[in-house]
Amino acid sequence: MEASQQARQIGFIGLGIMGRSMAGHLLAAGHTLHVYNRTRTKADDLVARGAHWCETPGDVAAVSDIVITMVGYPADVEQVYLGAGGLLDRARSGTMFVDMTTSSPSLAVRIAEAARVKGCASLDAPVSGGDIGARDAKLSIMVGGDQAAFDTAEPVLRHMGTSIVLQGGPGTGQHTKMCNQIVIASTIVGVTEGLAYARRAGLHPETVLKSIGGGAASGFQLNVLGPRIIQGDFAPGFFIEHFLKDLGIALGEAAQMGLELPGLSLARRLYEQMAARGLERDGTQALLKLYEA
Amino acid sequence: MEASQQARQIGFIGLGIMGRSMAGHLLAAGHTLHVYNRTRTKADDLVARGAHWCETPGDVAAVSDIVITMVGYPADVEQVYLGAGGLLDRARSGTMFVDMTTSSPSLAVRIAEAARVKGCASLDAPVSGGDIGARDAKLSIMVGGDQAAFDTAEPVLRHMGTSIVLQGGPGTGQHTKMCNQIVIASTIVGVTEGLAYARRAGLHPETVLKSIGGGAASGFQLNVLGPRIIQGDFAPGFFIEHFLKDLGIALGEAAQMGLELPGLSLARRLYEQMAARGLERDGTQALLKLYEA
Repeated sequence: MEASQQARQIGFIGLGIMGRSMAGHLLAAGHTLHVYNRTRTKADDLVARGAHWCETPGDVAAVSDIVITMVGYPADVEQVYLGAGGLLDRARSGTMFVDMTTSSPSLAVRIAEAARVKGCASLDAPVSGGDIGARDAKLSIMVGGDQAAFDTAEPVLRHMGTSIVLQGGPGTGQHTKMCNQIVIASTIVGVTEGLAYARRAGLHPETVLKSIGGGAASGFQLNVLGPRIIQGDFAPGFFIEHFLKDLGIALGEAAQMGLELPGLSLARRLYEQMAARGLERDGTQALLKLYEA
Repeated sequence: MEASQQARQIGFIGLGIMGRSMAGHLLAAGHTLHVYNRTRTKADDLVARGAHWCETPGDVAAVSDIVITMVGYPADVEQVYLGAGGLLDRARSGTMFVDMTTSSPSLAVRIAEAARVKGCASLDAPVSGGDIGARDAKLSIMVGGDQAAFDTAEPVLRHMGTSIVLQGGPGTGQHTKMCNQIVIASTIVGVTEGLAYARRAGLHPETVLKSIGGGAASGFQLNVLGPRIIQGDFAPGFFIEHFLKDLGIALGEAAQMGLELPGLSLARRLYEQMAARGLERDGTQALLKLYEA
């Protein structure tokens, strides 16, 4: 721990693959950790390393200065924060909440308002970088909330990410994550269609990548996921079912803003077809299967 | 000129912005250049530097060992190669033809067959990299044809590009270029939709790029064209009218292969709307206008 930082009482709720890695970094940095997860066994490793188990989210709030949440769906976020006996029910005045779940911008605004009423601060702070970014503490963290809350939370977030950017007021972290997912949605469609065309035309996709991987088509989706598509490696870097959740949030928000996004709508229709075939636990790059069926 | 290369009689047909740059590199390398262009004035600069003007494409073929073409549309390619008094009508046996126009893979196969009948060799060799790539001799050149023809042409192509890859037999250079355009088509839709959402949500798009420009959404379209979109700089790096030509070729070929590409179809519909508004001379990144109308 750096001299400029004090050890804090930090709560962490949501110990999936990413949450466990992120919580582990906070523990390693010397903070006292209070944890809760729906499935208790996922906390075993952290508890063995010194984290304190709590029986409910509310119990976490009661003993923490900062509570970080990394749960599944917006409905889970709403339940944990706003449900009876939830975080805001039990929070002491002055507690800071940081929701790192990818969730609805509108819900983030509601939570921020509810927190303010209780004398608490809140940030929405979704991440990109996936399992590996979480494990290596190299996440990109997109933050919405006020500057003072950001300044307080930033040293803690620093243990989990390398790019930590305040985007604006409540909800803007989630909106920024939606921008990220919207760009990816149509890009993966383009990469998939380009490689499906290459195969159908009888080209050698690896050789095609040699020609097109350095120019105007280049990018993470083509250069990192492209080779996996070519090799038929459809193991999840990012699950289709989680991508579908994000695309649904983005389309809902866009509809509220009166913004039509036909590329995003198309991507969702295609991934819904993947889910209908039972492929929702494949990685997003498995979309190729739809074009080769 | 390197010691291993001999000065050649090279024909060059099609002296648009890119063609002029490319022909200039061949002249600078010490080759003898025979040029033709529909609008003669576009040859003035090259002729002043020593290139020989020819009155017809056929005249170019009659005096050249290698003829390079860089014209507009597939119909132009067909006319120049297969029309009466065109290249193959006038070619001597043993002449090599290299079509660097982005054109139809099927037409490339037809030209290769017609060239073979005449005792000539041909390559399809479209490029990516745009005006700047042509000017700086840093094009990516995607080549279709046989290995012996490729080996003969490669030292000449080397004066114009840095990535020169033989993709396979006749037509595979064009097919590879189509892969490139197919990937770009949906990617630019995604980038545009992500940034349109950012603006509508009241985010600062520059700050959004700070968060999302280094991760899974990153790439040439987001990182190079994104800032131009944000600044409202819609000057053409690549004209919408040329992009529409390429998307039409790709969709036609895909239809022949029985391959549905819904992302590509959507991109074409959106760019056709741009053209219908008289915006076909904007750069591809101007698609944002459709979302803010």
